[in-house]
Amino acid sequence: MEKDQWLKGLMEIPVTDEKAEKEARNHMDQLTKPLGALGDLEEIVIRLAGITGETVPDIERKGVAVFCGDHGVTEEGVSAYPAEVTGLMIGNFSRGKAAVTVLARRFGAEVSVVDVGSRLEPLPEGVLDRKVRFGTANMARGPAMTREETLKALRVGADLALQWKENGIQLAAVGEMGIGNTTSASAVAAVLTGKPVRELTGRGTGLDDDGLERKREVITRSLEVNRPDPADPLDGLAKVGGLEIAAMTGFILGAARHRLPVVVDGLISTVAALAAVRLAPGVRACLFASHRSAEPAHGVLLEDLGLKPLITAGMRLGEGSGAVLAFPLFDGAVTTAKEMATFSELGLNG
Amino acid sequence: MEKDQWLKGLMEIPVTDEKAEKEARNHMDQLTKPLGALGDLEEIVIRLAGITGETVPDIERKGVAVFCGDHGVTEEGVSAYPAEVTGLMIGNFSRGKAAVTVLARRFGAEVSVVDVGSRLEPLPEGVLDRKVRFGTANMARGPAMTREETLKALRVGADLALQWKENGIQLAAVGEMGIGNTTSASAVAAVLTGKPVRELTGRGTGLDDDGLERKREVITRSLEVNRPDPADPLDGLAKVGGLEIAAMTGFILGAARHRLPVVVDGLISTVAALAAVRLAPGVRACLFASHRSAEPAHGVLLEDLGLKPLITAGMRLGEGSGAVLAFPLFDGAVTTAKEMATFSELGLNG
Repeated sequence: MEKDQWLKGLMEIPVTDEKAEKEARNHMDQLTKPLGALGDLEEIVIRLAGITGETVPDIERKGVAVFCGDHGVTEEGVSAYPAEVTGLMIGNFSRGKAAVTVLARRFGAEVSVVDVGSRLEPLPEGVLDRKVRFGTANMARGPAMTREETLKALRVGADLALQWKENGIQLAAVGEMGIGNTTSASAVAAVLTGKPVRELTGRGTGLDDDGLERKREVITRSLEVNRPDPADPLDGLAKVGGLEIAAMTGFILGAARHRLPVVVDGLISTVAALAAVRLAPGVRACLFASHRSAEPAHGVLLEDLGLKPLITAGMRLGEGSGAVLAFPLFDGAVTTAKEMATFSELGLNG
Repeated sequence: MEKDQWLKGLMEIPVTDEKAEKEARNHMDQLTKPLGALGDLEEIVIRLAGITGETVPDIERKGVAVFCGDHGVTEEGVSAYPAEVTGLMIGNFSRGKAAVTVLARRFGAEVSVVDVGSRLEPLPEGVLDRKVRFGTANMARGPAMTREETLKALRVGADLALQWKENGIQLAAVGEMGIGNTTSASAVAAVLTGKPVRELTGRGTGLDDDGLERKREVITRSLEVNRPDPADPLDGLAKVGGLEIAAMTGFILGAARHRLPVVVDGLISTVAALAAVRLAPGVRACLFASHRSAEPAHGVLLEDLGLKPLITAGMRLGEGSGAVLAFPLFDGAVTTAKEMATFSELGLNG
């Protein structure tokens, strides 16, 4: 597997700060609650400490990156919505009226909408133009894109993560928009996990039984036509992935490289995360799961990554909406670490 | 089962506004997302509409009521903490330095700390003095309290719910503090569900194996000594319950009576909710589950109530901390209903 120098550098993920983790654990153990009684909230604080090196981390500045791309495979009738909806939704993000933007405003998170490969032009105000190409090719007939395009998309994501870190963002969420992308994501999941297509494929935005059968058949055909190498995550991303998926993989690599913790969203961003972890296993330490999506592949991917979701609300929207919904739980965790009394302040030995 | 006029009135729960529910569902179906893609967030909006009668409900003003009481059964060595911790934690609430108060401040919720039966006196500033008695009696040797005391505690809760409704609170959470109260709550759970004590009893604030065995034995003995009537929830609350548990039952009844939606917390508040539903089945329509606690009885109770928790973070703190942590998820749900675009605004038929 060839890698240029840039990609090699991106994959040098710093190790977890075990001293900060230990200090954070000691701190949580002294607070006025039974040991471990805040459950995964305590783990959040401890893991954030390990990533950032701060015993009580600060996560006031949060952002969600929404990567957008179109998918040639929509020709095969794999989505309940027409491909044009990708472009319409980019407009909706730009106006702040989509779920992820509404939730981000409510919870005080910044939003970057990044067009890495939609068919829309011109782009609406405020959308970052990082278009690598106008949608992927139909993977049921050949590779979705070239390896070079995949690396370009990857770099779009990695560059944004670095820019966010430099601008002071302390906790990132990652999401996407791209009609057809549960098809691509399920195909990449099949490549990376080796699990059967039947088990991994779900109804996406709302397919009926016939549509679900067709989607499975299209994914199976795409894997047969392209034969992506399971040992080479970039090959899977290129042949049966998508531009926004590759960009999310790059974003997650870049974030981990620069110690910016990332909350993954549903199926598609979690596939991107698994690809990033396969490229550089150290990435895993910087990842948090937000929710368990209704898409069947999502549980499989979370398990593969060893991530435990916080929210089980049957969401299946994507965009980063589930990840942003989890932000207040992170705020809650860090706020307990910052503001609770210790047992000794209460006159008790913890 | 005798009931006085006051209790009869409290149990007249208004029916759900099905027209408002239907309008809310129609509204959610028109928003720019696949049908049902926001999962349980959509159910939250629809159920809030049914409770309040408003298609897009307003829940900006939120509160958490923390009921406190001591338990005579602590004599039997059923808790990892000494009984004095109840009083120390009431002071901690008063100073705003306990988990529930820290989270409430973060998420903009008001807090009422209500002493309905602790042994502490004098009470610290800001704590509502509604003491019915100085802790319950040891239920392993006889009834925890009288039926009259139980009704007094119930009324403390019901009166607070009415007062909150009149003061404009729109979403309530309910929690508690009382060393020994997972023992009482598990006993009441055994009475109301008929499930075996072994299955329902957990480690509370952190018992070891021997402590867990002792706790099971004490609960079994308390049930044998008192023989509470499973068909009479007040009898179970009186004989093996607690003052703060009875007050939460009253709070939940009062809230449902006045169409104030209530988010329940962990094991103890959920037992109180089940008692309220057994007294007046219409209460169920006003209840929401926040999280799934690590205590084994909690899942059994949530299933009995037909409630699905939103958060699975292994919390087991009580106080209302899990319920308050769920508040932002309710805010997120209602905010999508208020601020998302409709498909027709996007130029598409939903």
